[in-house]
Amino acid sequence: MAKKAAKKLKVACLGGLGEIGKNLTVLEYDEDIIIIDCGMGFPDDDMLGVDLVIPDFSYLKKNVDRIRGVFLTHGHEDHIGSIPYLLSEIDVPIYGTRLTIGIIKYKLEEHKIPFKPRLFSVEAGDVIEAGEMFVEFIHVNHSIADACALAIFTPLGTVIHTGDFKIDLTPIDGEVMDLTRFGELGKEGVLLLMCESTNAERPGFTPSEKTVGDSLKSVFMRHPKKRIVITTFSSNVHRVQQIIDISVAHKRKVAVIGRSMQNIVSAAIELGYMHVPEGAIIDIGDIKNYNPENVTVITTGSQGEPMSALYRMAFSDHAKLNLGNDDLVVISANPIPGNEKLVDRLINEFTKNNVTVFRDSSVEIHVSGHACQGEIKLLQALVKPKYFMPVHGEHKHLAANRDIAKSMGQDPSTIFIGENGKVLEISSKSAKFNGTIPSGVLFVDGAGVGDVGNIVLRDRKHLSEEGIIVVVASVSLDEGLLISGPEVITRGFVYMRESEELITELRRIAYESIYDGLDRDYIDWAQLKNAIKDDLARYIYSRTKRRPMILPIILDV
Amino acid sequence: MAKKAAKKLKVACLGGLGEIGKNLTVLEYDEDIIIIDCGMGFPDDDMLGVDLVIPDFSYLKKNVDRIRGVFLTHGHEDHIGSIPYLLSEIDVPIYGTRLTIGIIKYKLEEHKIPFKPRLFSVEAGDVIEAGEMFVEFIHVNHSIADACALAIFTPLGTVIHTGDFKIDLTPIDGEVMDLTRFGELGKEGVLLLMCESTNAERPGFTPSEKTVGDSLKSVFMRHPKKRIVITTFSSNVHRVQQIIDISVAHKRKVAVIGRSMQNIVSAAIELGYMHVPEGAIIDIGDIKNYNPENVTVITTGSQGEPMSALYRMAFSDHAKLNLGNDDLVVISANPIPGNEKLVDRLINEFTKNNVTVFRDSSVEIHVSGHACQGEIKLLQALVKPKYFMPVHGEHKHLAANRDIAKSMGQDPSTIFIGENGKVLEISSKSAKFNGTIPSGVLFVDGAGVGDVGNIVLRDRKHLSEEGIIVVVASVSLDEGLLISGPEVITRGFVYMRESEELITELRRIAYESIYDGLDRDYIDWAQLKNAIKDDLARYIYSRTKRRPMILPIILDV
Repeated sequence: MAKKAAKKLKVACLGGLGEIGKNLTVLEYDEDIIIIDCGMGFPDDDMLGVDLVIPDFSYLKKNVDRIRGVFLTHGHEDHIGSIPYLLSEIDVPIYGTRLTIGIIKYKLEEHKIPFKPRLFSVEAGDVIEAGEMFVEFIHVNHSIADACALAIFTPLGTVIHTGDFKIDLTPIDGEVMDLTRFGELGKEGVLLLMCESTNAERPGFTPSEKTVGDSLKSVFMRHPKKRIVITTFSSNVHRVQQIIDISVAHKRKVAVIGRSMQNIVSAAIELGYMHVPEGAIIDIGDIKNYNPENVTVITTGSQGEPMSALYRMAFSDHAKLNLGNDDLVVISANPIPGNEKLVDRLINEFTKNNVTVFRDSSVEIHVSGHACQGEIKLLQALVKPKYFMPVHGEHKHLAANRDIAKSMGQDPSTIFIGENGKVLEISSKSAKFNGTIPSGVLFVDGAGVGDVGNIVLRDRKHLSEEGIIVVVASVSLDEGLLISGPEVITRGFVYMRESEELITELRRIAYESIYDGLDRDYIDWAQLKNAIKDDLARYIYSRTKRRPMILPIILDV
Repeated sequence: MAKKAAKKLKVACLGGLGEIGKNLTVLEYDEDIIIIDCGMGFPDDDMLGVDLVIPDFSYLKKNVDRIRGVFLTHGHEDHIGSIPYLLSEIDVPIYGTRLTIGIIKYKLEEHKIPFKPRLFSVEAGDVIEAGEMFVEFIHVNHSIADACALAIFTPLGTVIHTGDFKIDLTPIDGEVMDLTRFGELGKEGVLLLMCESTNAERPGFTPSEKTVGDSLKSVFMRHPKKRIVITTFSSNVHRVQQIIDISVAHKRKVAVIGRSMQNIVSAAIELGYMHVPEGAIIDIGDIKNYNPENVTVITTGSQGEPMSALYRMAFSDHAKLNLGNDDLVVISANPIPGNEKLVDRLINEFTKNNVTVFRDSSVEIHVSGHACQGEIKLLQALVKPKYFMPVHGEHKHLAANRDIAKSMGQDPSTIFIGENGKVLEISSKSAKFNGTIPSGVLFVDGAGVGDVGNIVLRDRKHLSEEGIIVVVASVSLDEGLLISGPEVITRGFVYMRESEELITELRRIAYESIYDGLDRDYIDWAQLKNAIKDDLARYIYSRTKRRPMILPIILDV
């Protein structure tokens, strides 16, 4: 009888390695699987027309009976954004803190889930049984309230996953990250630490959220006559709370603009995460009744998004509020890489209209929500893990986090930089990468999930740079005759009215290609189309140095 | 007899205001026109497929007989890049310093100019007669050698145009910007100062190019065993000179990779702007004969451009050099706004392959070529102009430069923030904006200049995000019959093999639309096409929430 193999712990990320976003980690022990986070990603520049990117759930679907739960660290889109898509496929229990679950409930209203989702609210300190494993939620600081790290107790040892975190010694909601609990677990012995890497390239410590409040106070004091318009990430409940508090202290009413900002503020007030005095918030339609010095506006649009409220205000396209001389715009957020030009466009438009603009580079009005090198070192010193795995970040961030661990004395052979899908297999004796699980991505475009793939994207890129030329003709194959056409129609190539002569020439070339093809004993459909394509492509390139997509369509009548 | 109007000086920019790039300034006095710089711009993200942007020369073509010359401040693309396109249209004399003219000669080899261009080399200090005006070249520091500001002496007073400049007190080529000459002109009285604004948001002074040399020296000293691969802007002759000098001192041979880098190094050596000891430069094909510690590679690709040598090295796609453990990559340049993600992609790929990467944020290995606030203030203090006009920059930069002038005591009513095409009219008594001259832009795409316009770009954007659906049918109008089709072909919409059922359904809808249209007493061609479009669009949106371009083509047979 074969000896039963010793049970192993398997850890794999389906997203979040080598990228920012789309965080999803799978932990397996024997028959039990738990999932940590289930985020979405934003499309790269070359994913034309794609709205979102989500993980491919095929592995989870196949193993649905083994999944004991999805455990969420916090309510940011890159950690929970794919939950509606996961629940469209499989019914699994979801665990998260109250605000996280509250945000998910709002999200699920926009999706049709074919069953009643099993959503469970927990608090930091709670421990959830998950088959042979147990999951403990541990309070951390981050740029959204109610964020947690997770300790997963397995028969082979304890795994800690930090989620996103920073150490804020003067947090707005009064509680510092639970460093003691990390230290206790460290003393008991931690098998594996999975630590976020977003800011691992930055030395020092991330400043406290409270420093932003201090900067904002002085902005309010130095500009008592201006209407103040502040934009920040809508999920940053503490930032919004501070802005409201300072406004109230300066006898300003607060108007909240932008759908996601309004949703989060409503949810946060309802769940008790924000506290707003009666009458402090006014409707945007009423701000015309107040002098500029008596109003603060909190708005979406900190990334320069062209559909956001702030963008429409900048380009004088907002129904209720246009900005000018009396206004001070405060951008309390940094541009996410790739959005720099969008934010610059906004600022240029404001300066044109004599709106004063403050952004982070001029005054300290934003702090990161992620741990810098000092905080990562402190955590590693408390946890002292046997194995270390940097997670959440582009490769350069993971490498920087590895270097931090090395500088703390962690043996390089115990540090694992993974890739999405790569399985880290841990036994009682050792750890090593062994095999992969499917970890593709699906593109969400409009209502479609997964029907846009690489071929479609390649075509979109080609179309976007060179345009398309459609050549249409009807022929009679039986008689070997051209019946009608060829018509040549272009889109995105050159402006046709100015290039009539070019189009006429293209029609002539297509005509010859077709007659050549029809002149043969045996008419080969594919050959005919390819000949048209090649003849046109050659002429077009020689004349314009361009390579538009050419689409010949021949109808047999 | 009507009294003759007093002659006025007119100043207008056809590019460079509200944007970085495409610098072109027009100065007119009576019958004389002079042009300052003639640059190209890079396309915005929404100018899909466009290679370059150049100014619309229609105004210059119309007034060619009045143009006394094009005066170039320096040899960067955003100041000279449109010269070949201008010379394709009109024959005007071009003046510039030796390196600038040398670079233009290289450029013109790639274009067919229908006459022998009149190119004139000048030196700082030279004064050129231009009708009733005179133009003096004044030495400034910048990130390319042989850069000049211009003083234009007009019957109404002196105009100074800074071009691009910084004040480098320890420049590599030994000459500090000619501050005395600016001071002399200031004492004599300057009518108008046009001052570049690129770094007007940054306080302090731009560090000397020499500080980069010091940083690079310590990089070479601390990494004696690595092959060092450095990328920078190819036109930065002084940077390249420093890298070669340090390499020679460390007994390293230098290989130069990338066409533009090789061109500029050749030109600079030939013209005496660079000095390289015999045998210091080796062919890239020979580096395999040297140990890593004996080689420096200087390469293009500092912006992460996907076709550059450095990019191909990162993705192991370079025929002669792939990088690994033994290599240290130094990125001696900052990403131009919009290129951040490209550069990050490069760095991620290097860290994956264990290549060490240094960039500006970690060590000071790049300095700007543009004046910060301190230098702009110093210049304004020397020149003390009657009127001030910020040029070269996005609107936020122009506004920052205006604020600097205000802080120096310049009367706000004498400061003019212009727009491309807006004419500043200066008389002996006053200055004011009055009228405009045509100042559009032309897109260069492949060999085409101006045949890609906004309609084409709009179509490309639509195609890039949603793809296209082509519907083709042959009908007999006489008989009111559908003869063949409808065929439905998509590109960039959904992957057809996975969506056969959707395509079948679209064909059915098109079929019905066509039969409806043919069923009428009077068949309206346009109406028929619109009906097909509308019917398909409605169905596609309801099912996929997408709006692809729909192109119905009906052939009458």
